Amino acid sequence: MIKSVSGERFTVTYILSGEKEDALAVAEDICIEQTVEFPPELIKDNFIRENIFGRVESFSEIEEKKFCVDISFAVETSASELTQFLNVMFGNISLKPGIRISDIKLPPQFAKQFKGPRYGVDGVRNILDAHNRPLISSAIKPMGMSVSEFAGLAYKFASGGMDIIKDDHGLSSQKFSPYKKRVNTCCDAVNEANVKTGGKTLYFPNITAPFDEIIDRAYYAKECGAGGVLIAPALTGFDAMKHLADDDNFGLPVMSHPAFIGPFLSGTTGFTHGALLGKMMRLAGADIVVYPNFGGRFSFSIDECRDIIDNCKCGFSHFKSIFPCPGGGMNFSNIPEMKSFYGNDVIYLMGGGLFKRSDDLTANCRELREIVI
Amino acid sequence: MIKSVSGERFTVTYILSGEKEDALAVAEDICIEQTVEFPPELIKDNFIRENIFGRVESFSEIEEKKFCVDISFAVETSASELTQFLNVMFGNISLKPGIRISDIKLPPQFAKQFKGPRYGVDGVRNILDAHNRPLISSAIKPMGMSVSEFAGLAYKFASGGMDIIKDDHGLSSQKFSPYKKRVNTCCDAVNEANVKTGGKTLYFPNITAPFDEIIDRAYYAKECGAGGVLIAPALTGFDAMKHLADDDNFGLPVMSHPAFIGPFLSGTTGFTHGALLGKMMRLAGADIVVYPNFGGRFSFSIDECRDIIDNCKCGFSHFKSIFPCPGGGMNFSNIPEMKSFYGNDVIYLMGGGLFKRSDDLTANCRELREIVI
Repeated sequence: MIKSVSGERFTVTYILSGEKEDALAVAEDICIEQTVEFPPELIKDNFIRENIFGRVESFSEIEEKKFCVDISFAVETSASELTQFLNVMFGNISLKPGIRISDIKLPPQFAKQFKGPRYGVDGVRNILDAHNRPLISSAIKPMGMSVSEFAGLAYKFASGGMDIIKDDHGLSSQKFSPYKKRVNTCCDAVNEANVKTGGKTLYFPNITAPFDEIIDRAYYAKECGAGGVLIAPALTGFDAMKHLADDDNFGLPVMSHPAFIGPFLSGTTGFTHGALLGKMMRLAGADIVVYPNFGGRFSFSIDECRDIIDNCKCGFSHFKSIFPCPGGGMNFSNIPEMKSFYGNDVIYLMGGGLFKRSDDLTANCRELREIVI
Repeated sequence: MIKSVSGERFTVTYILSGEKEDALAVAEDICIEQTVEFPPELIKDNFIRENIFGRVESFSEIEEKKFCVDISFAVETSASELTQFLNVMFGNISLKPGIRISDIKLPPQFAKQFKGPRYGVDGVRNILDAHNRPLISSAIKPMGMSVSEFAGLAYKFASGGMDIIKDDHGLSSQKFSPYKKRVNTCCDAVNEANVKTGGKTLYFPNITAPFDEIIDRAYYAKECGAGGVLIAPALTGFDAMKHLADDDNFGLPVMSHPAFIGPFLSGTTGFTHGALLGKMMRLAGADIVVYPNFGGRFSFSIDECRDIIDNCKCGFSHFKSIFPCPGGGMNFSNIPEMKSFYGNDVIYLMGGGLFKRSDDLTANCRELREIVI
């Protein structure tokens, strides 16, 4: 056995709530709980004490009863596995209150073991040949429609110049529109519209599925000519998304959906919005990250959304910048506010608002496209 | 396409916080958000309105500003997939505050599509030939030890009559103890001790791993003679655990670990302890559910632990009762309290406390076994 380490350490920033004395104790506890999970006084092995224990690198009060602590861990604790990396960062301490991750920093050699997003902002823009404008997106829905009804919607969206059409995240393989039939038919519909308009609309089927069907569904989507895939990593596990993003044979863009991720963003535990929906999604290979926009029917604030977009594009090892894709209550009236907030590198995701505009869905897509540019 | 439903509906109980008027609106919102995710007034299709929309079945105030609402969903919305079932229960609304799941009820035909635990309490007891006593368990740790050090520990545990020895959940495939080498060597050590003592100690390696390695690690464990596996479903996705539990060729007991699951239990969102660590774990195939005991270094209360054990054994479709496995700060002095609380159907998980007792680990195991019986 090799009892040595490279000396490379990754650093996790935790926000701790409470009295200073307690926060200091929590910081020390994280160093132990997340690594050896063992009474430290019983560990005589100096190699373990010096290398495996987490290490408090800095500790500071950021506001009253709120502390920011950087803790570093030997990269070897993670075994270069995303599952184990998440486990070291937040496995057991997820069960303790008042601990929230706000940042992740990786040393260069370690970071290289994660490919990150295959396309990112530039790659998705290249596919769409859309280099200097926001992109627009919508979803085929509602659940309960038939395959031909969904294909009809997809055709109208594509005819109106939608950049990306995704499955609603609630479409899996219900009998009303079984996965293969839906994906095959919708791919054809989008392709037909593209041929007619000369457009490049992409269709992203939802591959959030049982463990043993995720890969098959992804490859089936590719065979049918899909432009990418949608996946909810909180339902499938983050590493399922990473696995697909890393797969050179697959090679399509990946859009992450936030279904089931909410408790990790609840404020007192989990992650900050930027750390989870920005950095973690990049680390796990998403090219596009869907999340609920501020001011809509969800509860994200404008600051939380800013945190997400900042972390979609900030310097983070070699990982490409990715597209924020705000949705959830977007409509024609709040586009001016969104334009000034998001700038160019954004994919607007409009669902219900697009249908509400008028009965002519294709015209509504055209109008949306004109307005956002 | 088949535009019909069976009429069978599963029911989810949500606890909603806030004013009555708001809670009623949230209940109605759940019916829409979790199914069609579309402005309901725009849906003209009566089939969808009548069958796909969720349905509020009951609504009552359980304490001041706390409401209990039963919402039913057509079983077809879930496509009989665990991922999509979780998505319908809590996908998008996980991103809204103050919604917590406290119960799940499945109609019979739908429930039959989920196998649940393969062994449960009786099955695990049969394997161990231990029918009328609590079981005892410990973990090989800390991370940073070598394979031969872990094998030495496993041998001592088994020699002392430990029922189940699990990997620490932080052991994946770090270079200090690579997975295959560790599992192979520890299986041999446990087997050797069993031959010597006539005991039946089982070793459960940790198969929480990258997406494409989970199954290989599980089968490798089986080949080596492991007695079961440990998996953290919040890291791998719940369906990875279910997939293994369902696999007749694999067929070993499954122990779930709560790493990374904490935010789902944080009180204002997610699930109650019993709904998640009891019912959901049974639905997803766990035979044994590890969780932090009350009074230890974690924050679970005695009532939350009672909720878990109640939901490990309550009537729940055809799903077998499973073993609660409290750990995290257990020691010799709190065993009397635990004995009166847990009764017979429990697996005590003692880690650090076992090492602290004396330098003779085998003797400590024997003492633990005598005390708990």
